[in-house]
Amino acid sequence: MKSQSTIRVRYAETDMMGIVYHGDYVPWLEVARTDLFRQSGLTYRELEEMGYRLPLLGLNLQFKQPAHYDDEITVEVRLKQKPTFRFRLDYVLTRGSDLIAEASTEHVFVDHSGRPTRPPEVFKKLIAEVFPD
Amino acid sequence: MKSQSTIRVRYAETDMMGIVYHGDYVPWLEVARTDLFRQSGLTYRELEEMGYRLPLLGLNLQFKQPAHYDDEITVEVRLKQKPTFRFRLDYVLTRGSDLIAEASTEHVFVDHSGRPTRPPEVFKKLIAEVFPD
Amino acid sequence: MKSQSTIRVRYAETDMMGIVYHGDYVPWLEVARTDLFRQSGLTYRELEEMGYRLPLLGLNLQFKQPAHYDDEITVEVRLKQKPTFRFRLDYVLTRGSDLIAEASTEHVFVDHSGRPTRPPEVFKKLIAEVFPD
Amino acid sequence: MKSQSTIRVRYAETDMMGIVYHGDYVPWLEVARTDLFRQSGLTYRELEEMGYRLPLLGLNLQFKQPAHYDDEITVEVRLKQKPTFRFRLDYVLTRGSDLIAEASTEHVFVDHSGRPTRPPEVFKKLIAEVFPD
Repeated sequence: MKSQSTIRVRYAETDMMGIVYHGDYVPWLEVARTDLFRQSGLTYRELEEMGYRLPLLGLNLQFKQPAHYDDEITVEVRLKQKPTFRFRLDYVLTRGSDLIAEASTEHVFVDHSGRPTRPPEVFKKLIAEVFPD
Repeated sequence: MKSQSTIRVRYAETDMMGIVYHGDYVPWLEVARTDLFRQSGLTYRELEEMGYRLPLLGLNLQFKQPAHYDDEITVEVRLKQKPTFRFRLDYVLTRGSDLIAEASTEHVFVDHSGRPTRPPEVFKKLIAEVFPD
Repeated sequence: MKSQSTIRVRYAETDMMGIVYHGDYVPWLEVARTDLFRQSGLTYRELEEMGYRLPLLGLNLQFKQPAHYDDEITVEVRLKQKPTFRFRLDYVLTRGSDLIAEASTEHVFVDHSGRPTRPPEVFKKLIAEVFPD
Repeated sequence: MKSQSTIRVRYAETDMMGIVYHGDYVPWLEVARTDLFRQSGLTYRELEEMGYRLPLLGLNLQFKQPAHYDDEITVEVRLKQKPTFRFRLDYVLTRGSDLIAEASTEHVFVDHSGRPTRPPEVFKKLIAEVFPD
């Protein structure tokens, strides 16, 4: 289960070092997650409409090379392990053949009130197809 | 009815021109509004808890001089005219004696579902003290 | 001289009202400007590499309807008047047939040190083709 | 070597989950770093004026409890180990007695052109006072 997204770097995302501000990589990961869900046939928007939320438990970013304004960055996201009520996503950010950054995020399913909850059936079915074990 | 807020420019708010990105002035206006409400004795947070929202109808910004990382910017906000269900706020941004920017925002009271509504009694009372007419 | 860009709303761009934060429309205008330049055959990146900058003198936004997470927003940008050393761009933001917002930005050409300057020849040529007068 | 900063959560920093967007913690860490430097007698701005930059090599964030609009968040930052040309900072984010998040960033000194470099003498002196060994 993986997907690829393309990000065109915005001027707003640069800082006075002339490169992308490190914090502005974070929304790119979210764009990649949104695309991963959409491509899997269950949009994150629908998931929220069903009453679920997927807040982050953790975030890790390793910066390899700076990114610049107007660069086209490819963000590849992958679900490597079968998720339980928690799951982890891994990201690789590249510009052509240059490795820009690596990242991971950890998520938990919560209900409307913020309490951890089991993932919805539609998500479990999706996962069962990818990780048939 | 006016208040003053101090903003220390964040690195995140600069861009590759070496100055503050023009869009990053917008949250500063919001900080000034939050302070204006707090100082008037009714926090914006309470207003939301009472079921009101104050979305923007319009936003105007005139940039006079660039702002830089670590600058201390003073944002003065003023309610010049008696509000009806709509109201307008005016802002002056300075760094010491330098004029950095001027701005205005226009707001409308809406209820939980986004429909325009009359302001709450507590707000009307506040306004009646400032604009006794 | 006009161009159209498509923006997919990021989760990062929403606020606790459940809609797009008003300040997060500003980078969308910049995306539209970048596309307008690219389509005209002179990227904004090249313009900066030639030593020019295009800071904003002013920004105006009129919000018509809220935008939501995962919406596809079309930003149309247009240069209506022949630019001198200053110029103004007008924007219309739509989601399908819904008008989301209208905006304008005013810019000035400055050199590396921030001083107002005449636009480069390549820009004047471009403009002369669009506004032959 | 440590310092404490107070952040008032901006509306801009919330998302449609009603809590602070995870990516908006990142600039808070930067505010804490800026304060740490200032308090140590060497502002980060001066460091840049001397030709140094401190880009991030890595960033780690562990989210413990959500933060909300208008919350006052305390960010404590600490340099635990004697830095070489690289160094790591650790952060604890609290709201009153609630632990909100823990974080760390890793940095490297680079020169104007982005090449790794030894820290300036004034920084080494500062560090020698804190880690006399």
